[in-house]
Amino acid sequence: MNYFSSDFKLGILGGGQLGKMLLFDTRKFDIQTYVLDPSDEAPSKIACNKFFQGDLMDYETVYNFGKQVDVLTFEIELVNLEALTQLENEGLKVYPSPKTLKGIQNKGVQKQFYANNNIPTAPFERFENLESLKSKISDLKLPFVWKCTEFGYDGNGVKIVRQVSDLDTLPNVECIAETMVPFKNELAVIVVRNPSGEMKTYPVVEMEFHPEANQVEYVICPARIDDKVAEKARAIALNVSEKFNHVGLLAVEMFQTADDEILVNEVAPRPHNSGHYSIEASYTSQFENHLRAILDLPLGNTDSKVAGVMVNLVGAEGFSGDVVYENIETILGWNGVTPHIYGKKQTRPFRKMGHVTIVNEDMAEARRIAQEVKNNIRVISN
Amino acid sequence: MNYFSSDFKLGILGGGQLGKMLLFDTRKFDIQTYVLDPSDEAPSKIACNKFFQGDLMDYETVYNFGKQVDVLTFEIELVNLEALTQLENEGLKVYPSPKTLKGIQNKGVQKQFYANNNIPTAPFERFENLESLKSKISDLKLPFVWKCTEFGYDGNGVKIVRQVSDLDTLPNVECIAETMVPFKNELAVIVVRNPSGEMKTYPVVEMEFHPEANQVEYVICPARIDDKVAEKARAIALNVSEKFNHVGLLAVEMFQTADDEILVNEVAPRPHNSGHYSIEASYTSQFENHLRAILDLPLGNTDSKVAGVMVNLVGAEGFSGDVVYENIETILGWNGVTPHIYGKKQTRPFRKMGHVTIVNEDMAEARRIAQEVKNNIRVISN
Repeated sequence: MNYFSSDFKLGILGGGQLGKMLLFDTRKFDIQTYVLDPSDEAPSKIACNKFFQGDLMDYETVYNFGKQVDVLTFEIELVNLEALTQLENEGLKVYPSPKTLKGIQNKGVQKQFYANNNIPTAPFERFENLESLKSKISDLKLPFVWKCTEFGYDGNGVKIVRQVSDLDTLPNVECIAETMVPFKNELAVIVVRNPSGEMKTYPVVEMEFHPEANQVEYVICPARIDDKVAEKARAIALNVSEKFNHVGLLAVEMFQTADDEILVNEVAPRPHNSGHYSIEASYTSQFENHLRAILDLPLGNTDSKVAGVMVNLVGAEGFSGDVVYENIETILGWNGVTPHIYGKKQTRPFRKMGHVTIVNEDMAEARRIAQEVKNNIRVISN
Repeated sequence: MNYFSSDFKLGILGGGQLGKMLLFDTRKFDIQTYVLDPSDEAPSKIACNKFFQGDLMDYETVYNFGKQVDVLTFEIELVNLEALTQLENEGLKVYPSPKTLKGIQNKGVQKQFYANNNIPTAPFERFENLESLKSKISDLKLPFVWKCTEFGYDGNGVKIVRQVSDLDTLPNVECIAETMVPFKNELAVIVVRNPSGEMKTYPVVEMEFHPEANQVEYVICPARIDDKVAEKARAIALNVSEKFNHVGLLAVEMFQTADDEILVNEVAPRPHNSGHYSIEASYTSQFENHLRAILDLPLGNTDSKVAGVMVNLVGAEGFSGDVVYENIETILGWNGVTPHIYGKKQTRPFRKMGHVTIVNEDMAEARRIAQEVKNNIRVISN
């Protein structure tokens, strides 16, 4: 198959910032892209070859979109699985496969998959809904982590239950109760795998949390951990990707426990926030490698050229409206600082508006500049 | 001025591959772009915010386009200078300035500028046309280099005159006759300068020629030359940029003579083929720095993360039609290899269709892989 400057068409479900960054590489290789997204203001709209506005959860919309392309991928998991399955049954290449996605979309199913495949993960119980959890509350040890199994992302749909009354605020949906594991680090490994079975992992990254707000502040590559722990994390991530028979990028989020065990938290079958640093720091960005993987091209080198730290740009509290990136000119003056502005015109509190990558030969220096970036830039409105 | 996710509009004259690569960075920063190009199939067409088809040499077309934007730049020198001058007079920010461009567009004027400003360059004579050159042929020492002063690029419009009869094949246009200087290296330095006067140079690159075909085969960064020669080249390039009062990127092409003198050959007031390696090898690509410069933002770090070698992809002789990149899958399997496909659907002999960058910590290894790339990939048609 000739992908380059040809009639080949890659379909992408979702046109958000992940899709936008993926399009940098489809454009670089001149691979034709069709994008489907519900929003007329999707960040991917202007750099794809053809944009379709429509509901990603609607069977007909997704099916009809899929019929127009040669390979289909997605940048968001919340897509109509039945349409993907039908398209695959009809011979379309859908990567990652709907079979894989099915094991991931529902967090209960995902956790069960780890348990069935001897992949280390925190102990858990599955519940059909909150009522059934409540009926077994006496079997659960407080505190525990409640997670809704569907449609949760970015901390949405996760809650620490410290006392029984905390349950009162939760929705009556399918859920899991997970043992709270004390961990010293939250890590992630991105695996890339193509249909021929070639696999590579990116270095282990570390999510550094704000000591009080309990929010990820920095993604740091490579993680400042022992080599042996890093090796173990990469081996587990490879195993997860293989067991899922995954094609494309798989971001595996993990906990490093107090005694250096690695527990898989959850996965994302697509380019991921924890891999954004790769655009500037790696020989091959996560987006380019996703593209290579789903087209069954040889995978690119996942090593880093330099140390990288990533800071998310989220809307500041108290501001809604036309976005202004306060002090962006200031941070552009610092060494190795690259802002990525996703292209959303309106800011809202905590909305993901962009990210900033800081690269440097010296990790300590990158980390220091990242803190300065964090202290200076603010996403506000006029 | 707020450039990011705002109503600000950057106008770009020309929508070729240089414009296409510039758009990666306008998109990254979410800066709105309007592009004017004569071709409906311009590579920049799909990633700009608004595309206009029109003649870049036509006064009205360029003037009307300029009236719609807040800052105007170009990715090709062959644009209507009078329109740019008028727009600047009316208060539009045009970078590089038409005054600068005027000193560059005509090679006779450009050479005279070097002579007037004590910038080292090969000795030359200017002639109104070929007839007047012929009338003074007895004063010229053979061999010499004939150059037409306008509309020549990529070796077009340059010819070595070894005997008087060589003149018979040349057009009767304004020209210069330049002393042939024996040189051991062809070098280039890219300078970036913003309106506030902040200036940086990229490392010196070396153009390695095919020993027989006399064609540039590899652009190598950093050049494998003595540090003192490199320093001298960078100092001369800075001086050229300052003397031109240039804003944006200026690529300064030079000769290193047998006795390590540096002579300026010619300049290009825009992103340049000799800086393509910077996308993968540098902390800040030439395109991002052009953008930073024309918006008077702080300039990015021009240092390299790793060694870089660039190979141009030009249409193979004997092939015209729908392009096929033979063996592109093979080269993608090698370490640090990134093809850039410009998006031209039709190949023709010697047409610039793309380039490949090879980066590596080790220059010798990058150069070795570059040779393998060159030996394997072919731009052909079905």
